[in-house]
Amino acid sequence: MLSFEEYRTIINTHLLDYIPQVDEYVSSLYESVKYSLTVGGKRLRPVLLLAACDFAGGDIKEALPYACCVEYIHTYSLIHDDLPAMDNDDLRRGKPTNHKVFGEDIAILAGDALLNTAAEVLTSQILSNSYSHTKMINHTKAANIILSRSGIKGMIAGQVADVQNEHQNVTPDIVHFIDEHKCGDLITAPVIAGLNLANADEKLINDFAYYAMNIGIGFQILDDILDFEGDSLSMGKHVGKDKDLGKCNNVCVHGINKAKSMLNSRTEKAKAAIEHYGENVSFFLELADSLKTRRK
Amino acid sequence: MLSFEEYRTIINTHLLDYIPQVDEYVSSLYESVKYSLTVGGKRLRPVLLLAACDFAGGDIKEALPYACCVEYIHTYSLIHDDLPAMDNDDLRRGKPTNHKVFGEDIAILAGDALLNTAAEVLTSQILSNSYSHTKMINHTKAANIILSRSGIKGMIAGQVADVQNEHQNVTPDIVHFIDEHKCGDLITAPVIAGLNLANADEKLINDFAYYAMNIGIGFQILDDILDFEGDSLSMGKHVGKDKDLGKCNNVCVHGINKAKSMLNSRTEKAKAAIEHYGENVSFFLELADSLKTRRK
Repeated sequence: MLSFEEYRTIINTHLLDYIPQVDEYVSSLYESVKYSLTVGGKRLRPVLLLAACDFAGGDIKEALPYACCVEYIHTYSLIHDDLPAMDNDDLRRGKPTNHKVFGEDIAILAGDALLNTAAEVLTSQILSNSYSHTKMINHTKAANIILSRSGIKGMIAGQVADVQNEHQNVTPDIVHFIDEHKCGDLITAPVIAGLNLANADEKLINDFAYYAMNIGIGFQILDDILDFEGDSLSMGKHVGKDKDLGKCNNVCVHGINKAKSMLNSRTEKAKAAIEHYGENVSFFLELADSLKTRRK
Repeated sequence: MLSFEEYRTIINTHLLDYIPQVDEYVSSLYESVKYSLTVGGKRLRPVLLLAACDFAGGDIKEALPYACCVEYIHTYSLIHDDLPAMDNDDLRRGKPTNHKVFGEDIAILAGDALLNTAAEVLTSQILSNSYSHTKMINHTKAANIILSRSGIKGMIAGQVADVQNEHQNVTPDIVHFIDEHKCGDLITAPVIAGLNLANADEKLINDFAYYAMNIGIGFQILDDILDFEGDSLSMGKHVGKDKDLGKCNNVCVHGINKAKSMLNSRTEKAKAAIEHYGENVSFFLELADSLKTRRK
């Protein structure tokens, strides 16, 4: 196993490798895609895919395109989420959002292009290297879990519930639904996909999926806490925006103290699910703790 | 082989079958997706996929989800293309466009959901039915050609060139690039995919891909002619919109008479590429002729 920073460096080095070369007429789209992919980011999701594959004895070289595709999907969701018709954000990661730089039309198409490229690369990978039948099935499963968790029953469902929660009477159930799908699903998917690529058994996959969903939900709870307590400078984005948008999140529905105890509880649940898996599991235990204390 | 109308009926009957059931919080998204899928449409692209598969001796039941996915991708591209930040259209197929009915935020997410669902269903199909290794490769090739022709080197490239061609000095080369990618690629992809599913040989695939690209480019040329000559009532959409948007199309760059002769030439080239393939090929020859005379 490598460190988080080592996996992150691999992702940052290769993140543009799978974006097809485009015609000169389309260079603005490529610049727009490249801008949002390289403007910064924790790379949590692709790192989780590499680490999960590595942990279960898989080949991280084979896992790399899958990891990059997860980041393409995450990035497209941010570009579309920031659009004026959605959350209307001018800043992301301390820099102007994609549509502020390239215009709304190109931002919409860049988001579409990133999602489409992810799907295209995932199916290319299944075909590549003349894999054995078992390996081909494992690779297809990895592609399918990424695409299903980002779709109409996954991340997009969370986005829809989030968009519709503006100026509404929101229940804890709806906030949980948003946390689980908008954030949890695309943190769980790379873990399951990485383990599928390593041909891991079902019990291991289920335990790690539970871990990932809990850190994912905790991630969103902390986002809500930081939106309440943080400052724009260290966050690199506008703070208090949920309130401005009339959205009710974990802090609004549960109060700040309950939200903090929920974050602790999610972190502990995540760790408890996997801590019996031996020495290498420390990567995932430490990651859960470090995510709990992030300030941006 | 069945008739165009018979293939079209199969598509219309099953088009919603592969859209996953969604949670109640997401019902507006489902309604939005369903609205655009059922508001009408020629179903040219999915019919071509079924017909190509059938022609080459494949199983159209297996091809049906692939055909529906092509229509999902086509429909998402129309929803996003109609958005205020893109072509800003209020009417599509004689009915209000998606964002006029459901709002811009849901329209953006409905487009995303349709593209994502297509990719999800395509990878699910590769895994389904415990296919043999050869069949699994053919199915993955079909999925991959659909996704690559709709992506950053295909349909999306055409959209970008089209968006950027507003109020510019446009050359015949750029108009041809738009025709080939914005329209031709997503008419060519289902033909190649359908033939891949039927395990057709390379020569047949290449000849039919040439046929499809020519009817696809012809389709766009006729769209431009109808945008110049047609009336809004029979077209079901605003006429003269390219001029209003400051876009230069085939009529603007070549003149109406040259555009008409180009359409004839594309139709003849398409037919000539495949007419030696025996009796059943009449489906494709007649289709090429009928597309040339459509009025909407």
